[in-house]
Amino acid sequence: MLEQIDLKQSLDKAEYVTLLPRLQQKLYDLHHDIFEARIPVVAAFEGWAAAGKGSTIQTLVERLDPRGFRVVPITPPRTAETHYPWLWRFWQKIPAYGQMVIFDTSWYRRVLIDRIKKEVRRREIQNIFEDIKDFESQLAADGAVIIKFWMHISKKEQAQRFKKLLKKELTSWQVTDEDAAQHKAYDDYLVAVEEMLARTDMPHAPWTIIEATDRYFTRIKVFQTLISAFEARLAKRSAGFGVTALVPLPSEGSRSPVLGQHDLNQRLTREAYQNQINLLQNKLHILGYEVYQQKRPVAMIFEGWDAAGKGGAIKRLTAKLDPRGYIVHSIAAPSGDDKVRHYLYRFWRRLPEAGQIAIFDRSWYGRVLVERVEGFCTESEWKRAYSEINQFERQIEQFGTILIKFWLHISQVEQLKRFQEREQLNYKAWKLTDEDWRNRGKWQDYERALEDMLLKTSTHLIPWTIVEANDKLHARVKVLKTVVDKLEYELKKE
Amino acid sequence: MLEQIDLKQSLDKAEYVTLLPRLQQKLYDLHHDIFEARIPVVAAFEGWAAAGKGSTIQTLVERLDPRGFRVVPITPPRTAETHYPWLWRFWQKIPAYGQMVIFDTSWYRRVLIDRIKKEVRRREIQNIFEDIKDFESQLAADGAVIIKFWMHISKKEQAQRFKKLLKKELTSWQVTDEDAAQHKAYDDYLVAVEEMLARTDMPHAPWTIIEATDRYFTRIKVFQTLISAFEARLAKRSAGFGVTALVPLPSEGSRSPVLGQHDLNQRLTREAYQNQINLLQNKLHILGYEVYQQKRPVAMIFEGWDAAGKGGAIKRLTAKLDPRGYIVHSIAAPSGDDKVRHYLYRFWRRLPEAGQIAIFDRSWYGRVLVERVEGFCTESEWKRAYSEINQFERQIEQFGTILIKFWLHISQVEQLKRFQEREQLNYKAWKLTDEDWRNRGKWQDYERALEDMLLKTSTHLIPWTIVEANDKLHARVKVLKTVVDKLEYELKKE
Repeated sequence: MLEQIDLKQSLDKAEYVTLLPRLQQKLYDLHHDIFEARIPVVAAFEGWAAAGKGSTIQTLVERLDPRGFRVVPITPPRTAETHYPWLWRFWQKIPAYGQMVIFDTSWYRRVLIDRIKKEVRRREIQNIFEDIKDFESQLAADGAVIIKFWMHISKKEQAQRFKKLLKKELTSWQVTDEDAAQHKAYDDYLVAVEEMLARTDMPHAPWTIIEATDRYFTRIKVFQTLISAFEARLAKRSAGFGVTALVPLPSEGSRSPVLGQHDLNQRLTREAYQNQINLLQNKLHILGYEVYQQKRPVAMIFEGWDAAGKGGAIKRLTAKLDPRGYIVHSIAAPSGDDKVRHYLYRFWRRLPEAGQIAIFDRSWYGRVLVERVEGFCTESEWKRAYSEINQFERQIEQFGTILIKFWLHISQVEQLKRFQEREQLNYKAWKLTDEDWRNRGKWQDYERALEDMLLKTSTHLIPWTIVEANDKLHARVKVLKTVVDKLEYELKKE
Repeated sequence: MLEQIDLKQSLDKAEYVTLLPRLQQKLYDLHHDIFEARIPVVAAFEGWAAAGKGSTIQTLVERLDPRGFRVVPITPPRTAETHYPWLWRFWQKIPAYGQMVIFDTSWYRRVLIDRIKKEVRRREIQNIFEDIKDFESQLAADGAVIIKFWMHISKKEQAQRFKKLLKKELTSWQVTDEDAAQHKAYDDYLVAVEEMLARTDMPHAPWTIIEATDRYFTRIKVFQTLISAFEARLAKRSAGFGVTALVPLPSEGSRSPVLGQHDLNQRLTREAYQNQINLLQNKLHILGYEVYQQKRPVAMIFEGWDAAGKGGAIKRLTAKLDPRGYIVHSIAAPSGDDKVRHYLYRFWRRLPEAGQIAIFDRSWYGRVLVERVEGFCTESEWKRAYSEINQFERQIEQFGTILIKFWLHISQVEQLKRFQEREQLNYKAWKLTDEDWRNRGKWQDYERALEDMLLKTSTHLIPWTIVEANDKLHARVKVLKTVVDKLEYELKKE
């Protein structure tokens, strides 16, 4: 593939000097339009060491408004970053709407340097390509422009550049051990680079190969590529993003009444409850330390009807857990940084680190429940969310995260009874809002959304547990028992 | 001091079993009131290893709503955390309004373990006490309840507890090397503990010593202390927070017309500008690498009248800087996490790490400018902000941060001219908002706020630079020259 590239392409200095200010002005104007249109931009620069990534980026941003972009240099992950799924640190850096983030090397490090250094195993590589494709698809579907550059120079050219850099004190530190190792293994790298380009070149996130021998040619081509991408994206601003839903929806008729199969009236006596809950809490107390010692992350999510008893179940779950080992995230409407980025951003940044338990009181499933029913997102957004959520959960599960999902289920009659009780009991009245009554009016809509959700996101590896919750005692014991069983199974597997 | 403590205090089990549920219920109710009143709570647990911090915290939170508190265990700082002033990592964890954060060991680690281990030098200790006092005063002034526990046991008791823990596999890992070292140096610790208690016991952040030999007694006393603190705070909810401004305000008459001394009409020819700016940008390019190599953090802040040319000055400043080495923060009104915490939180989290340049387009001075003039904060809030800001800057300066502050100054006539130009030039029209016109109407109010600000926050070590900005060319050169001079001075000092 890459041997076809004509590395002799170059540009005359006079021509460069004429072209550059024009292109810089053009990019400045487009950058402003992108900002106004709230389009996020991801530009990733990959390429051989000494191919000129740094100086190209500098020329690129020289005339831009510094408030509208951010350059993020990527180094090997810091210790704290290795406690999360590998893409976690890149999710932390995704652009806000209207912002451009330029990555000086990127997540592709994983299939280049880490691969050559054998820090990822052969059989992991395909998974990593999948992770990358999911990541880029998700950003693109959310409206992002994604531009990826591979800056290409020959082995000989690289040698000459290293020599020149090493001569001067001001530049010699720029040639790192990692760079030297790359040069030595140039041919191995070439194989990895070609596979990377072939596997991850997608219409919504294409690679542009830059023949980088001549720096004038390099810069002008980078400018032109960005300008074209911006123009193309601005042109179809109102025409949708061109990424189709990845999972076909089942037709209305094929909907299986998943929830109808559950007997909501399972009950437990107070005495049986007390015995079982104590036993389970004590077991969980010890399993909590085991989680910490085995450095496994755990994520538990609680979804359910209003007044189904999520809060109470979580309280019994955590009662004897060491409070240093868990964290409860209450998920309401997004705000601040969360509000101006991809909807999964706020869950990526709240993922448990290795050895920690994160309990989500409502979760990313809001996208296909409340946001769907209330129209807070578009139809195409919630329709593609099923596959995005499955991709997201697959990634965290593969990192070793123990993921447990609960739907707390009560009948419509039971909910009404609880709402009325809350109104009467003064100390619980604050829990009941007008919104609760409004949501209740949409029971059927929620039920339909719920059936879709259970059908599409319950997998063998990461199933939903439906908790029959008309009886709170039964519900709490079932939650605890499910957690204890799952943790015992997972923690003994090792 | 501590030899006076009666470590034999204890409580009968029967009494404990009766008292505990009542106190738990009481705390549950108060915790809810605290949430409703949006009061932030900081509870710090310090004490001897094996004094029972973990189990006490667990009993404390057992019945609380897990959505309203967070337990934060403090370990030695991670590498990434050492790249910031030492309190940085604690600022990241401060409670949102209405939230309780329980620290299992805390910032006092610095004057205990780190001191004994000689990781802080003798002459640094007094500074650290100052830092701590400033930190707690700032939180308290913002409305936080601060409760600090020292859990005290004798050396003999500690020895017995270690022995017991080490016997069982499930608990033996809890005795760390650090704990063993503490036991050996018990008497040295005692001296450090007593100095800590004496130096940092303040009305708005008092220490409570817990005689921790008997665990029933321990827990009940902790509950009672928290309950009293909550009750006291809720009682004076509307009575102000009782922390007085730390710096006396100068009287109206003593105001010196700082700004009147500057000749706003200094000009530069285009030719002189071009020569100087190129030279300075090239120098800065090299100094940028020096900053990175010497691992010095740099913070530059830009304040100034609307249309004074902050954006243009920042653009010329960054034109030849390696974009991997700097970041521009545009500061608008706070949102999200920033909005529900102490106003300095959002600046602490945006501080440059060692080796990085952070450029603030508007800054923490908003508190004493726009927030003061527009009434976005109360009078007592902006009045105490001068000393809070001085404390904040002192801390980051002592960490080694190079701090440069600019006020871009134009005349009222010049501003009007620029506003009118912007209205006419289509491509700049988006920069001009109704708010700009409104602010202009308050010129005198801003001027008064500005004079106060310059007077109170310009110190010999961290002075303001007034940039005469009627002529943009002059302004840009002065900014660059100031930065180059300061960096050359600071980076050669070492």
